[in-house]
Amino acid sequence: MSGPGEFELIREYFASRIQAGEPGSGAARSVELGIGDDCALLNPPAGKMLATSVDTLVADVHFPADADPYKIASRALRVNLSDLAAMNATPLWFTLALTLPENSAEWLEPFARGLADTARQHGITLVGGDTTKGPLSITIQVTGTCERPLRRDGAGAGDHIFVSGPLGAATAALPIVTGKEPVSNEQRQQADAAYYFPEPQFEIAHLIGDYASAALDISDGLLGDLGHICEASDLGAELTTEQVPVAALVETMLRKQGEEDMPTRALETALTGGDDYQLCFTVPEQHLQAVFDTGAAHGLPITAIGRMTAEKGIRLLRSGSPWQPEHTGYRHF
Amino acid sequence: MSGPGEFELIREYFASRIQAGEPGSGAARSVELGIGDDCALLNPPAGKMLATSVDTLVADVHFPADADPYKIASRALRVNLSDLAAMNATPLWFTLALTLPENSAEWLEPFARGLADTARQHGITLVGGDTTKGPLSITIQVTGTCERPLRRDGAGAGDHIFVSGPLGAATAALPIVTGKEPVSNEQRQQADAAYYFPEPQFEIAHLIGDYASAALDISDGLLGDLGHICEASDLGAELTTEQVPVAALVETMLRKQGEEDMPTRALETALTGGDDYQLCFTVPEQHLQAVFDTGAAHGLPITAIGRMTAEKGIRLLRSGSPWQPEHTGYRHF
Repeated sequence: MSGPGEFELIREYFASRIQAGEPGSGAARSVELGIGDDCALLNPPAGKMLATSVDTLVADVHFPADADPYKIASRALRVNLSDLAAMNATPLWFTLALTLPENSAEWLEPFARGLADTARQHGITLVGGDTTKGPLSITIQVTGTCERPLRRDGAGAGDHIFVSGPLGAATAALPIVTGKEPVSNEQRQQADAAYYFPEPQFEIAHLIGDYASAALDISDGLLGDLGHICEASDLGAELTTEQVPVAALVETMLRKQGEEDMPTRALETALTGGDDYQLCFTVPEQHLQAVFDTGAAHGLPITAIGRMTAEKGIRLLRSGSPWQPEHTGYRHF
Repeated sequence: MSGPGEFELIREYFASRIQAGEPGSGAARSVELGIGDDCALLNPPAGKMLATSVDTLVADVHFPADADPYKIASRALRVNLSDLAAMNATPLWFTLALTLPENSAEWLEPFARGLADTARQHGITLVGGDTTKGPLSITIQVTGTCERPLRRDGAGAGDHIFVSGPLGAATAALPIVTGKEPVSNEQRQQADAAYYFPEPQFEIAHLIGDYASAALDISDGLLGDLGHICEASDLGAELTTEQVPVAALVETMLRKQGEEDMPTRALETALTGGDDYQLCFTVPEQHLQAVFDTGAAHGLPITAIGRMTAEKGIRLLRSGSPWQPEHTGYRHF
């Protein structure tokens, strides 16, 4: 029941455009046969483990349907690359399953360009795909090599909890990227950067790979994702909320909306807002100094925000007292 | 913007149910870490090439939205396994990206059961997934090992063209599976088997792997898919239409509809109807006898239907004269 022309569609728009970052790079050399046959044929690097992850982005759930296709492609691939980064893997190959309402060159051209630019930046090669007619939706599967995996289940009681950078920007960007809030050009650029161009944290994952006991990327919000580390490691956590770094865009947007209790709303957004794709990772006491030293040597914006605890659940301290967020960041925007 | 609970959804319905066919099988042993982290961690078998393919099935495009979820799962995984079979690969791992309108146990339970049963039958292990809210759509990526790949671009002029079995059954099954045509229980079972339980042709691919010069699975119809071999191999083809095997269900359904020129309509359906997932493969003259011997020894329903030609395009002969189908099989049903 699939329509004719999908084969040509994939080939025309993607196969010829998307290659690995450098001709002759590891990713490109490992591809024996790319798009156009029943399967791609791949030679995995000898003796290395593979890491793989798949994510679907649905129009009007994970991005505005009428957004610039170049930006949609960037976000779709970066969100997936972030899973490789969070595992401390190195990108090799990806596949694209694209469902779209119509075969429109006007849409496909910038989408393919966005995908090609993002792939080139991260040295990942498109090796297969499928195009189907239906409601707009993008499924990408990324695969990479992984020598020192950062899993969720390795944290120990007493380990220090870090985040790789400020949080909440993508949530604060929502009313801007959905066009609900008129803003300055500068603010629009900040919002686009946060929402459509999140940076997969490969560098930080690589630098802390020898020291961290667990890691993941923050896609659903810090509290929810830290909860996954807690659950997988059979532990709890205690956070010092004053240490949680809040993205500048959060305060800009709350100020614009005339929010009265700004420090509280900003904190709530940083704690519960998703889509930032910063890393949350844990570091045993004996490696704490090495992580701080590495951070200083490379100018990494990493911050220690609490400790893992034998007691289950996540406890938040604000001005030294137990505290709970009233609202999620998503609700402010 | 993704909803909470998707992580639990995947885990609850899939992670615990779907394993490789045999505990300790190659597929299961190669999985270092399965569902539940940022990535799956996989150990590819040493020194072997990997084959990988992705396909999306959209509700009411690739299957009736209200079909039995058990059957939908079977069809979705089998269609993907067929790509591995067509490459002469051996199944290892798959991922599932499932978009569904609501979190309904009534739907997910039989779907997961259908996926688990199909995975067990073919010794393939679910290693990752994503669940999102949206219009019903299923993307599966399969990966296997491949030692003797059957590509599309290896055919030579004069090679004999084979199909692995009768064609047209899935197209003839359409009015039955969509409920448009009332039929007997036996006919319904035949239609279900053809449409929801197509058999990936691993056995035949394996047996002809040393002899065939090119192969693919027939998903879009024989003429269209043979066209892909022609294009990739820079050749044409000539078919003796009397040799093309027509599935029994095609004649049953045409008779039921009171079709007057039954032989012609049946042939058109076999030539242009998709979704059968039989193989089309080419065999050089020097291996022809070996293929016939192998077929006879294993009772394979393979049939030689024509030759590859230096002249481009596909020419059909009927009673020795050039002939063209008037209609596609899809239009009869």
